[in-house]
Amino acid sequence: MRVDEIARLLKAEMQGDGALEIAGIAALETAGPEDLTFAEGEQALTRALRSRAACILIPQGAVVPGHTTLTVAHPKLALIRAAEVLVPPRRPSPGIHPTAVVETGVHLAADVSVGPQVMIEPEVTIGARTVLAAGVCLGRGVVVGEDCVLHPRVVLYAGARIGNRVLLHAGVVVGSDGFGYVFAEDKHHKFPQLGQVILGDDVEVGSNTTIDRGSLGVTMIGEGTKIDNLVQIAHNVKIGRHCVIAAQTGISGSAEIGDYVVLAGQVGVADRVRIEDRAVIGAQAGIPTGKVVRKGLTMWGTPARRLEDFKRQYAHLSNLPNLAKKVKELTASLGEKQDS
Amino acid sequence: MRVDEIARLLKAEMQGDGALEIAGIAALETAGPEDLTFAEGEQALTRALRSRAACILIPQGAVVPGHTTLTVAHPKLALIRAAEVLVPPRRPSPGIHPTAVVETGVHLAADVSVGPQVMIEPEVTIGARTVLAAGVCLGRGVVVGEDCVLHPRVVLYAGARIGNRVLLHAGVVVGSDGFGYVFAEDKHHKFPQLGQVILGDDVEVGSNTTIDRGSLGVTMIGEGTKIDNLVQIAHNVKIGRHCVIAAQTGISGSAEIGDYVVLAGQVGVADRVRIEDRAVIGAQAGIPTGKVVRKGLTMWGTPARRLEDFKRQYAHLSNLPNLAKKVKELTASLGEKQDS
Amino acid sequence: MRVDEIARLLKAEMQGDGALEIAGIAALETAGPEDLTFAEGEQALTRALRSRAACILIPQGAVVPGHTTLTVAHPKLALIRAAEVLVPPRRPSPGIHPTAVVETGVHLAADVSVGPQVMIEPEVTIGARTVLAAGVCLGRGVVVGEDCVLHPRVVLYAGARIGNRVLLHAGVVVGSDGFGYVFAEDKHHKFPQLGQVILGDDVEVGSNTTIDRGSLGVTMIGEGTKIDNLVQIAHNVKIGRHCVIAAQTGISGSAEIGDYVVLAGQVGVADRVRIEDRAVIGAQAGIPTGKVVRKGLTMWGTPARRLEDFKRQYAHLSNLPNLAKKVKELTASLGEKQDS
Repeated sequence: MRVDEIARLLKAEMQGDGALEIAGIAALETAGPEDLTFAEGEQALTRALRSRAACILIPQGAVVPGHTTLTVAHPKLALIRAAEVLVPPRRPSPGIHPTAVVETGVHLAADVSVGPQVMIEPEVTIGARTVLAAGVCLGRGVVVGEDCVLHPRVVLYAGARIGNRVLLHAGVVVGSDGFGYVFAEDKHHKFPQLGQVILGDDVEVGSNTTIDRGSLGVTMIGEGTKIDNLVQIAHNVKIGRHCVIAAQTGISGSAEIGDYVVLAGQVGVADRVRIEDRAVIGAQAGIPTGKVVRKGLTMWGTPARRLEDFKRQYAHLSNLPNLAKKVKELTASLGEKQDS
Repeated sequence: MRVDEIARLLKAEMQGDGALEIAGIAALETAGPEDLTFAEGEQALTRALRSRAACILIPQGAVVPGHTTLTVAHPKLALIRAAEVLVPPRRPSPGIHPTAVVETGVHLAADVSVGPQVMIEPEVTIGARTVLAAGVCLGRGVVVGEDCVLHPRVVLYAGARIGNRVLLHAGVVVGSDGFGYVFAEDKHHKFPQLGQVILGDDVEVGSNTTIDRGSLGVTMIGEGTKIDNLVQIAHNVKIGRHCVIAAQTGISGSAEIGDYVVLAGQVGVADRVRIEDRAVIGAQAGIPTGKVVRKGLTMWGTPARRLEDFKRQYAHLSNLPNLAKKVKELTASLGEKQDS
Repeated sequence: MRVDEIARLLKAEMQGDGALEIAGIAALETAGPEDLTFAEGEQALTRALRSRAACILIPQGAVVPGHTTLTVAHPKLALIRAAEVLVPPRRPSPGIHPTAVVETGVHLAADVSVGPQVMIEPEVTIGARTVLAAGVCLGRGVVVGEDCVLHPRVVLYAGARIGNRVLLHAGVVVGSDGFGYVFAEDKHHKFPQLGQVILGDDVEVGSNTTIDRGSLGVTMIGEGTKIDNLVQIAHNVKIGRHCVIAAQTGISGSAEIGDYVVLAGQVGVADRVRIEDRAVIGAQAGIPTGKVVRKGLTMWGTPARRLEDFKRQYAHLSNLPNLAKKVKELTASLGEKQDS
């Protein structure tokens, strides 16, 4: 693809040589003479001067003298758009691999790709153009939407429902039993785990993440929410739209999370917590049982506090040895005065 | 099933219409006119007045006027009993799927179900009525008891021993190598991981949890212990009976945990820790190497302290900015006095 | 194998009966009359007096009267060497299992073992004597070196490169998409995840650990680094040689970790952190975004501090209720003086 073709695609203003051929996408430092890259911010724009890239996406008002550039409103977003055309994801051809096991009463829409050793139980429905990679296992009655990609070894328990354009990475488990027991007669009796699990459109879930079904109710992940690797989402959790949940975070039973919430890595959300829209929880923070985090707040620590309180308290904690010394001196000094 | 039949099953006292047909189990709020539900506690009993459920399980002394109810000693436990009959888990039919690979010298007891793409190495023994779902992989010499369910993609390394009525959820790994090395000659030499791993009867293990074998000794999980998703249990760990271990908790090498212990989510137990019977460890707490947690104690924080100490110290931490201000004032005030 | 043969193998000095037959390796307490064991340190050497082992590896200068012993420079290392001969790991026979799916253009070197239900996409290269256990899935263009063992259900995404003598435990995922999005127009747009992932020679990775590919760059794990179960390594992370990373630790995007670094369990390393050679990070510690940890430092806590600072501050935190009381008394006492 030529630079001027990319300019047209992105509705970008071009400086330099529109006839250059672009073959791929790369980072500023590693881009070669056939690569498209991007530069945002003062530092990156300075480093861009030394880039070997064929063409650099830059924001309005920037210049990179001596380089072919495309000016766009949002360089990183433009790179995403260009990448979709330049390096489209390789999709396996449609059809059912001879080693796949597809039970009776399964409905596959047009152009579904069912990979080797896939196992599909009865009454499953798969939307058009969805890809099931090697070893994916779909339990009875599962519904998967259109244009999804389920990477190798994904397991959906019976009845799980997945929207359109959902990406599930290798080893993801959706719909396993919630962790619920009744303690009686000196042992734990398993509570029925009969509920549902629903993932909205455009959800992405990272490798080996686990999402339990509802016990009697529903576990729900809203449209556009992105979940990283090794995250745990317990039974009856409700997560809103367009949230970002980083790796190794755990969300306990019946917690409710609003829209546009950000949970950093290794966060722990206890049971029945409510986190309102656009709140941000810092890495490794812990939100105790039943707590409500108000709209837009940023919290850190265990138990979590407002970020500014956390910072203030920790600054004082660092200074605590000095404070203790001062109190000792005051006591001594007062003692002297009392003696005198 | 009719309400009066359920009453007989549960030895419950019935109020209302015994002829109603019950088809399922649901939560108080979502139950419909063919569902059984339960209500415990004042709040739930109030909400029960608006429930559309056909029949409500309630504790002794409670009433829900205008509704068909069954009075039992323990409503939640009674719901479990009723669910076993009303919505029994669907079991695949016995037999070996043609795509499964079963090596020589494997002993399968009566009515075992071996799913698609299961792999069973030589000298494995499987007890009666056990279900191996799609893609389960059992290494040489594995022993699995009766009435177990191994969900898709469970991997048991060679020699792992599993009791009766054990549930292993999708992606569980049991018997992988412990994390042990000897540092010498500027690199890490792998220590032999030749030990055993034994899971007792009625153990349940959540999705993608990992349990390592002993290095030279044994990793052991006692009868009735319940383990959530994404938990890590290292080599030579001993866990007692009827413990509850919530998601993403990690237990390091050679730690010993008694009976009826509760570990909340994301707890870290360092190596050679000993946690005595009925202790409770709060979410995200960290128990340092070699520490002993006495019988029945509740601990929180990293490094973990008794819950009451943790709470007191954290209350003071929150107040630390004020305390520092007060010390400053005292110093100033004392200075003035000294000046005067 | 006889004790005197083991003595020759280890170049050890022998005391006792060289004709004893050794069949296995065991811990000091559980070793029987055909086992080799080891004892290091005063306590272990005392317990060794009661051991039933056929032969005990001991360090220079130690004696265990009445027992057959072998004196070596490093008993634990000597045990590793002896174990390699006494209990060599059982390797499946070379060849391709009939249920494996091997696409065109795959290069398998001599004596590779491809297990049941393995899936190998086109253009994959596998080095000599490497073992792919049941259900391993290798994406297009993957390169695996010589003498590797990939345990059941390991997934390598397209293009992942693995060195020689690498061990990947069950459920490991290498090369999945990094967690990168651009927020615009009120939603998260997936950033291209087109980079590479490279694991050096002699790396070991624990069960269900996940390692993402670079977004545009490379994720790299250096030679000899050992990674435990359920660890998360994000896109573009660089880890040096001979590091040890314990279970459930998470390393965020673009973090850089030197050589011989130790990360204990459940550590969180935020994005763009740099940890220099031989630093040690204590369990559950959190290193905030962009922080540099200098060569050889030991850190603990969240946000992480030098271990000695952490300990001092926490000692003062424990004493904070007393300090607050003292300040109250001082205030009262000063008030009285002012009143008088």
